[in-house]
Amino acid sequence: MNAFSSPVSADDIAATLERLRSRTPRVHCITNAVAQTFTANVLLALGAVPSMTVAPDEVEGFAKSADALLVNLGTLDRERRHAIPQAMAAASLAGRPIVLDPVFVNRSEVRCAYARDLLAERPTLLRANQPEIESLLPGPDPTGSLAAKGIALAMTGPEDLVWAGDREVRLGNGDPLLARVTATGCAGGAVMAAFLAVEPDPLHAAAAALSVFNIAGEIAAENARGPGTLVPELLDTLYGLEPKQIAGRLKLTGVKED
Amino acid sequence: MNAFSSPVSADDIAATLERLRSRTPRVHCITNAVAQTFTANVLLALGAVPSMTVAPDEVEGFAKSADALLVNLGTLDRERRHAIPQAMAAASLAGRPIVLDPVFVNRSEVRCAYARDLLAERPTLLRANQPEIESLLPGPDPTGSLAAKGIALAMTGPEDLVWAGDREVRLGNGDPLLARVTATGCAGGAVMAAFLAVEPDPLHAAAAALSVFNIAGEIAAENARGPGTLVPELLDTLYGLEPKQIAGRLKLTGVKED
Amino acid sequence: MNAFSSPVSADDIAATLERLRSRTPRVHCITNAVAQTFTANVLLALGAVPSMTVAPDEVEGFAKSADALLVNLGTLDRERRHAIPQAMAAASLAGRPIVLDPVFVNRSEVRCAYARDLLAERPTLLRANQPEIESLLPGPDPTGSLAAKGIALAMTGPEDLVWAGDREVRLGNGDPLLARVTATGCAGGAVMAAFLAVEPDPLHAAAAALSVFNIAGEIAAENARGPGTLVPELLDTLYGLEPKQIAGRLKLTGVKED
Repeated sequence: MNAFSSPVSADDIAATLERLRSRTPRVHCITNAVAQTFTANVLLALGAVPSMTVAPDEVEGFAKSADALLVNLGTLDRERRHAIPQAMAAASLAGRPIVLDPVFVNRSEVRCAYARDLLAERPTLLRANQPEIESLLPGPDPTGSLAAKGIALAMTGPEDLVWAGDREVRLGNGDPLLARVTATGCAGGAVMAAFLAVEPDPLHAAAAALSVFNIAGEIAAENARGPGTLVPELLDTLYGLEPKQIAGRLKLTGVKED
Repeated sequence: MNAFSSPVSADDIAATLERLRSRTPRVHCITNAVAQTFTANVLLALGAVPSMTVAPDEVEGFAKSADALLVNLGTLDRERRHAIPQAMAAASLAGRPIVLDPVFVNRSEVRCAYARDLLAERPTLLRANQPEIESLLPGPDPTGSLAAKGIALAMTGPEDLVWAGDREVRLGNGDPLLARVTATGCAGGAVMAAFLAVEPDPLHAAAAALSVFNIAGEIAAENARGPGTLVPELLDTLYGLEPKQIAGRLKLTGVKED
Repeated sequence: MNAFSSPVSADDIAATLERLRSRTPRVHCITNAVAQTFTANVLLALGAVPSMTVAPDEVEGFAKSADALLVNLGTLDRERRHAIPQAMAAASLAGRPIVLDPVFVNRSEVRCAYARDLLAERPTLLRANQPEIESLLPGPDPTGSLAAKGIALAMTGPEDLVWAGDREVRLGNGDPLLARVTATGCAGGAVMAAFLAVEPDPLHAAAAALSVFNIAGEIAAENARGPGTLVPELLDTLYGLEPKQIAGRLKLTGVKED
């Protein structure tokens, strides 16, 4: 199969975004304190509906009635440590997709051990950068060990890579100014969960999420005067993003689908 | 009495706003994690002064020295569960008005039971949408059961309704784009508390708060390009809102005052 | 020595800012819930890298590997109360500068007693306004008692004063609109920590931090239409601030250096 005739195409991504906007999925987010407000606003701008409770005796109900679950480890306080396994178990039982974002596991052994236990619960998609993956999966073949568990991987960086089993997509959109705003990466994980709520294939969902968020980021960076105006520009752009903007900017740098 | 010669008028609302700006009341807010920063900025833009601590051993002092108290149940963690009854008791004893916003009681039985206990403490004003009211007060006459306790009710929705005993106000301002920004409703509850600090009649205070916030929202939505630019526009508009803008836009769709 | 030939000059401040941007120090911030996101964005706009965890079993590792530590007492929940002494001890052992911002100690005796215990740990710099200083150090000579412990003091207000031992700097930049946005003061404390990471003299670091933040605030206030647009303008201005803007606006109203 010719990689670039693959269904991961600008048209496909635009169609998935349109589906997201028409279905308005609810995404339950257990995320860090710094990212909560921005993540909620990114989801609302995109067309999804956030919920955010972390109370252990409420989180099961919220997680199982949502269309997808995001678990971000950036704030790992007592309340969240109890809530996360319960939320993941409830979402799994209800057949909901789960994104795990093990923020900074490379900086804290406690957090790394906690994240490994969560991987055993088989989230749908792991979103991490290279140092986080190396800490979490120290062996020679991290993608292989994930594939054996049926977990897809989105590795973010200057180039973003998505693996699901033997399939692979590489993406090149984005702008360095995004790194000068806190929680853009964390919000990107929530966008992946929103796309998984309307697209069951994790490869396609993650590729669509990364493309939409990063293309919006590129457009916003061109219109912004710095990291302050980038935030409102990014939300406005996500809100109004059109298929032709996706088609005109998508940088699919590699696709391998069998 | 002719409803539209009622003291709930554009002039009255503008006068109450002016009083708020000149008195700069302090509003203590126990509110959810996602709403905290935006709520503080809304209060500051309006001319009030927020405080936000949720620590149980500090909250009484903050609540009784403030001019009004907002209790929003959007984050119901252990610390807030202990702090809320203490803050409400301290504010009641000090004669301060209290707004209760029972966010998402329709999604969590734990939260609904907790909110019912708080109603027994007789907050000044309950702010809720219809599904929340139906969960919290399942009988045939929710407004009657509140009136019996001396609690006023602001029911938010496409049309906003305020009841205080037999009196009723209906308001039609607002813009759908406000729902694409997180915590606009929660911040609206804090605005009600700020108006109650300078206007003892809950019907007038709630009507003024809803009008000012939603008129500012309309103006902001006209000047914004999406939900991102809506936030700074809304804060700027609240900061500079003028009597003639209130007079030109106020949609009082019904007033019943005996 | 002529005070105004002192090394606290516009050129010196611009050079310190340039050093900060090239070294991108990591600043670990234990700060209040309302200030977290804005503080992170201020640090990122300035060129520093924030980390924010408050989990007691993680905070030592984050604090000792960071280049500076900010401790802000605006949210004093159970988790932070345990984490703060551990973080300060770890940062001290690693030789990292520490800024203590005892927010609202004048409103809470619990918090005031807690902050006094932290002063015994000798943070590098205390950042406070006059009411907070009077509560925390009730004797006749607060600066003397700090000097005896080797703690520098930045007292913020309409005029900002910095003392380090016998030396003193007075600064007059800023704009009243900054007080209409939540957490500008708290973010200013984080900026002091970032400057201390690249400038060991606390007098110079605090003076540079106050000048840079307040000059950016002045420029932003001139370009903003209210407190809403002030936020993105401030972040953009911090991101792009140039030496000539510092030179053209710096208000050094007094310098005493021996």
